[in-house]
Amino acid sequence: MHTPAASTATEQTTPRSGMDLGPPVAPRHGALTPLRLDEVRLTSGFWADRQRINRENTLGHCQQWMERLGWIDNFDATADALARSTDGEHHGANFADSEVYKLLEALAWEAHRSDDAELDGRFTALVERVAAAQHPDGYLNTCYGRPGRPARYSDLAWGHELYCAGHLIQAAVARAKTRGVEEPLVTVARRVADHIYTEFGPAGREAVCGHPEIETALVELYRVTGEERHLELARLFIDRRGTGTLPPIHFGAAYFQDDLPVREATVLRGHAVRALYLAAGAVDVGVETGDQSLIDAVGTQWDTTIARRTYLTGGMGSHHLDESFGADYVLPPDRAYSETCAGIASVMLSWRLLLATGDPRYADLVERTLFNVVAASPRADGRAFFYANTLHQRTAGAVPAEDEVSKAAGASLRPPWYGVSCCPTNVARTLASVAGYVATRDAEGVQIHQYAACDIRTRLDDGTEIALEITTSYPRDRGIAIRVLTAGRFALTLRVPHWAQGTAVLAEGGRHRQLREPTFTVRREFAEGETLRLDLDLTPRFTRVDDRVDAVRGCVAVERGPLVLCAESVDLPADLDLEDLRADLSVAPHPHPEGATVRVRRRPEPVAWLGQWGPYGYPIHEDDRAPADGGKSAGFSTTSPAGEDRGDQAAEASVESTSASQRTQQVLLRPYHQWANRGPSTMRVWLPAR
Amino acid sequence: MHTPAASTATEQTTPRSGMDLGPPVAPRHGALTPLRLDEVRLTSGFWADRQRINRENTLGHCQQWMERLGWIDNFDATADALARSTDGEHHGANFADSEVYKLLEALAWEAHRSDDAELDGRFTALVERVAAAQHPDGYLNTCYGRPGRPARYSDLAWGHELYCAGHLIQAAVARAKTRGVEEPLVTVARRVADHIYTEFGPAGREAVCGHPEIETALVELYRVTGEERHLELARLFIDRRGTGTLPPIHFGAAYFQDDLPVREATVLRGHAVRALYLAAGAVDVGVETGDQSLIDAVGTQWDTTIARRTYLTGGMGSHHLDESFGADYVLPPDRAYSETCAGIASVMLSWRLLLATGDPRYADLVERTLFNVVAASPRADGRAFFYANTLHQRTAGAVPAEDEVSKAAGASLRPPWYGVSCCPTNVARTLASVAGYVATRDAEGVQIHQYAACDIRTRLDDGTEIALEITTSYPRDRGIAIRVLTAGRFALTLRVPHWAQGTAVLAEGGRHRQLREPTFTVRREFAEGETLRLDLDLTPRFTRVDDRVDAVRGCVAVERGPLVLCAESVDLPADLDLEDLRADLSVAPHPHPEGATVRVRRRPEPVAWLGQWGPYGYPIHEDDRAPADGGKSAGFSTTSPAGEDRGDQAAEASVESTSASQRTQQVLLRPYHQWANRGPSTMRVWLPAR
Repeated sequence: MHTPAASTATEQTTPRSGMDLGPPVAPRHGALTPLRLDEVRLTSGFWADRQRINRENTLGHCQQWMERLGWIDNFDATADALARSTDGEHHGANFADSEVYKLLEALAWEAHRSDDAELDGRFTALVERVAAAQHPDGYLNTCYGRPGRPARYSDLAWGHELYCAGHLIQAAVARAKTRGVEEPLVTVARRVADHIYTEFGPAGREAVCGHPEIETALVELYRVTGEERHLELARLFIDRRGTGTLPPIHFGAAYFQDDLPVREATVLRGHAVRALYLAAGAVDVGVETGDQSLIDAVGTQWDTTIARRTYLTGGMGSHHLDESFGADYVLPPDRAYSETCAGIASVMLSWRLLLATGDPRYADLVERTLFNVVAASPRADGRAFFYANTLHQRTAGAVPAEDEVSKAAGASLRPPWYGVSCCPTNVARTLASVAGYVATRDAEGVQIHQYAACDIRTRLDDGTEIALEITTSYPRDRGIAIRVLTAGRFALTLRVPHWAQGTAVLAEGGRHRQLREPTFTVRREFAEGETLRLDLDLTPRFTRVDDRVDAVRGCVAVERGPLVLCAESVDLPADLDLEDLRADLSVAPHPHPEGATVRVRRRPEPVAWLGQWGPYGYPIHEDDRAPADGGKSAGFSTTSPAGEDRGDQAAEASVESTSASQRTQQVLLRPYHQWANRGPSTMRVWLPAR
Repeated sequence: MHTPAASTATEQTTPRSGMDLGPPVAPRHGALTPLRLDEVRLTSGFWADRQRINRENTLGHCQQWMERLGWIDNFDATADALARSTDGEHHGANFADSEVYKLLEALAWEAHRSDDAELDGRFTALVERVAAAQHPDGYLNTCYGRPGRPARYSDLAWGHELYCAGHLIQAAVARAKTRGVEEPLVTVARRVADHIYTEFGPAGREAVCGHPEIETALVELYRVTGEERHLELARLFIDRRGTGTLPPIHFGAAYFQDDLPVREATVLRGHAVRALYLAAGAVDVGVETGDQSLIDAVGTQWDTTIARRTYLTGGMGSHHLDESFGADYVLPPDRAYSETCAGIASVMLSWRLLLATGDPRYADLVERTLFNVVAASPRADGRAFFYANTLHQRTAGAVPAEDEVSKAAGASLRPPWYGVSCCPTNVARTLASVAGYVATRDAEGVQIHQYAACDIRTRLDDGTEIALEITTSYPRDRGIAIRVLTAGRFALTLRVPHWAQGTAVLAEGGRHRQLREPTFTVRREFAEGETLRLDLDLTPRFTRVDDRVDAVRGCVAVERGPLVLCAESVDLPADLDLEDLRADLSVAPHPHPEGATVRVRRRPEPVAWLGQWGPYGYPIHEDDRAPADGGKSAGFSTTSPAGEDRGDQAAEASVESTSASQRTQQVLLRPYHQWANRGPSTMRVWLPAR
């Protein structure tokens, strides 16, 4: 067992400044209380590295692209139109405003996290341009409602006006929680929300936006401001959804969840990002209004969706056509959509359900999705992004130009920007605030949900101060050291990921304990400076799948800890095509510093086909010529159904072949999130098994 | 062996009228010469039934919908605009004209085939409205080039102007071959072609249409009129394709085959219908210009596409997003697009390759595609149609309204009409002329490619008269009787479908002969009235698939003769969910009057999962608890990789369960083309195997 070196100094000790008025998500009720971003700070390792790259590269990258494409200019043009009634152009999609708002949210969190005055200045300058585009009555959208543009709310199905407002409000909430509610952007957002209340509140039109998102934003705004109307408006939007207020569309009402009221649905469906944002908002409304029926309904939807409509990576959404969930068990790896934004929305949803219920399964999914969807999107340098996150790349694609906008969501290498570029800014805001997912507290103590090197300092409601220093290089290494810096009596709860239940070992108070349950709580008097050591077994493992998932029947995946691994062509011997690789299940995968190795054989070439047509017929494999059991076995791996006379024909048709398929070799699998960082390649998560 | 009753009178002996100036496809060179539609006439059976329904129901259905939606009015509006420079509306997609033209083509063939004066009158009346919309310079399109509409050729990528012109020309060619070249529609089409020659010919702009189709049409027009410029124009369009004359689009240049010149491509790719129409046109140009490089290139593309990118049904195109071929081996049954029009275009292509080369593999694919794609599209009454032809319907959908246009291409029951309604009229023209695919001749005799009850009367180049009467109810029954009505010396070649090679038996001249090759030729003196009897073994068979087709790994299909069978929920016992059905391969499928029965077991419920997350983990099946070999076997069907200690845990986790999965039962499979005619249902072609 690896023992992490004790650390006395964190790697990053930036001074704090400003206020910290609450955690990113701040329910007023629920099983667990989230920590503020000044209560838990990542110090090194996987996520700290990504936060650094986000700050150094991604934030500027996003802003440069949006300046270049005129998406920020849209605000200036709108301000101009308001001042002088000019006809202004509009650049980008009708939801381009939301990208600017997600960047603002990322800047708000990051300026606070890294106490970076330059970032803070950029935030302030951007806010000035945004604020100037607000209409006198509070309306704010650069695509609608000014000379030369369509009228306000003239296209609720596709116009994204309330969706954009939601992202504006979320950016304002981030600022309120890091600099206070007097900030200019908070004022802008309150006026936007008040305007929407007038338009769509109890006295307004009974309608919803085609893209949910404002619901969760309004509840967060209410939590910051205490303004009951904003909660009421969120509840109205939740209640109206599924009552057919939106017009019929090509993809059907399920696309924007207008097919069924939230309380009646039993599974997530339709456009994945829409479905997940809506569900997050429904939990928020349920928590704040004490409406358990909403929380329960979404909990059921989550259960069903995880059981039947979620990729191994945690990714959601299997249709390219409409970016939607497919039917149950439709999870094709090669046409996986698994949009980055859906992964982020899923994390948002699971986090809310975790806070409401305390059920550690939600934290399991947060971990899986963060490592295998959110971390997979950005290129290693944070300047290019996957939009869709396929689990199987069959053909090595071209290298995207560094100065061109990608028109299509599917790509085999990460492009720098997209025509619809929702994912890069969503990644940016998520990474800047990712520490918020690490831990919570309750009346008795602290719960650790995600393992990362960090400092945690919080205070329980009874005044108990708890300070912990966690040292680990997880998920690279298995050991996690939790040093208690404050003596006292409290409860420390550790999540045991599902794959570690039964093998995880906790060393504390002089004993070693095997952990078999999803959580383990140490509830006692802690001494200052004592260290608990948690060991999460990172032995790589074959993962199999319910055989109703047709698309990967007969395949296995390899996982190691929370990481889904994959085979990438650049790691294969030159003479082995990825599509010919067949995993040998008779030997367990072997740990490797970069992931794992597995024993594979080459796909046996059919020696001949009987009655072949295209890829269809009756294959005769070399293996079939001399089966180990003397040819007596029936079943899928043999040539022909028993009781037919094709056997003779098979024998006739047999021809000479090589024994290449009998040779075994070891191939290296690496974490899925790392793929496509070494030039064009092909990749598989699911390996056909022999 | 079933012996078809000798028939002395055909079931349908309509009088002939008018001219028959050539077969639907009339190459001037090639291995085989097609027969005219007055040389081969279907008398009863599968296709004759469908021709009747097409005449009685489908043709009127299509015309009523297009009148109702204003697609025919578009021509009146255009005529009005030309006469009085009025601003007219335009209804439907920018290629709605082409639906009217495909209906005209269907009417032309059917009016001739059934000698129906009422249909002929409808054709003539429609042509008058179309002709009135032609501009003085020959241009004809209702969507472009008149007041209030975009300019001519202002959107070559998406405007479909030359595509529409192609369908107009094909309708005119059908009329020319059944009523002569002096017909008004032929004059209209020649003027259209001349206009396009001026605009896009050697002295015109170097461009192509975003949707290939005009190429094959121009060659057929040339074959009718002898006008060399029309062949030259077709060759120019073929040569220009793949040289980047079209603008960049979202889906990439491969979508409209502008990524590579036709001669350099080795596989069909991009939008399936576009790719197949283009390939058909390339063969036509190759044949008429003696350019073997074109024929060879398309032959290679066909080979590769059949081997890697074609569904078992013959269907092509696996992406819903862009209606395109996927990468090699991407053939998901549940997201199969397999557009009806792609099936028709594939038949057109294979027929041209068959005529050019004489290779019977092309006729094999024609048969497969006609029975399993083209026949699957129309509902039994010919008043509703599949656009996409999925091979796996997971959820039983709603019943489409009989008076509503379907907005989406995917449906679980056939809707009456579509917003983009290319398939119904394409089915109509194909059924009306389907007899053209039955037989050909060459210098020595006649070749039978498709088996159907029919009369064949033709004359070889040396003057030999050949008359055959074929009696059969194939593919329902296995026997085919070919009665020779004219004494004489000639060669009679019979195609032996790939699945019958080795089991087909021909009784002729007093002997029984087993046929093992793709064709068999009887070359001798025939006596008047003698009968040859061909027996094609219709024993149902399990069909397997190259295991690079990930989506159906571990599955089998059942075929019977040329028919792909399927399991449909309405045929299952009430307590067996289609998704739980697992085929038992130890017993061959059994013949049944409606198709076949197969022995199935119920999917074993995992008794427990170890480390389960969603549908992922380490399943422990009941079967695994007491394996036949005492638990020693390694491999995919057992619980855990050898060498790990999960075995103990598996034993611990085992719990009581029922033996439901051990019970076997027989389920009925019916022809795929029949599915979804009995109300909402779920359906599978590929059955998971145990």
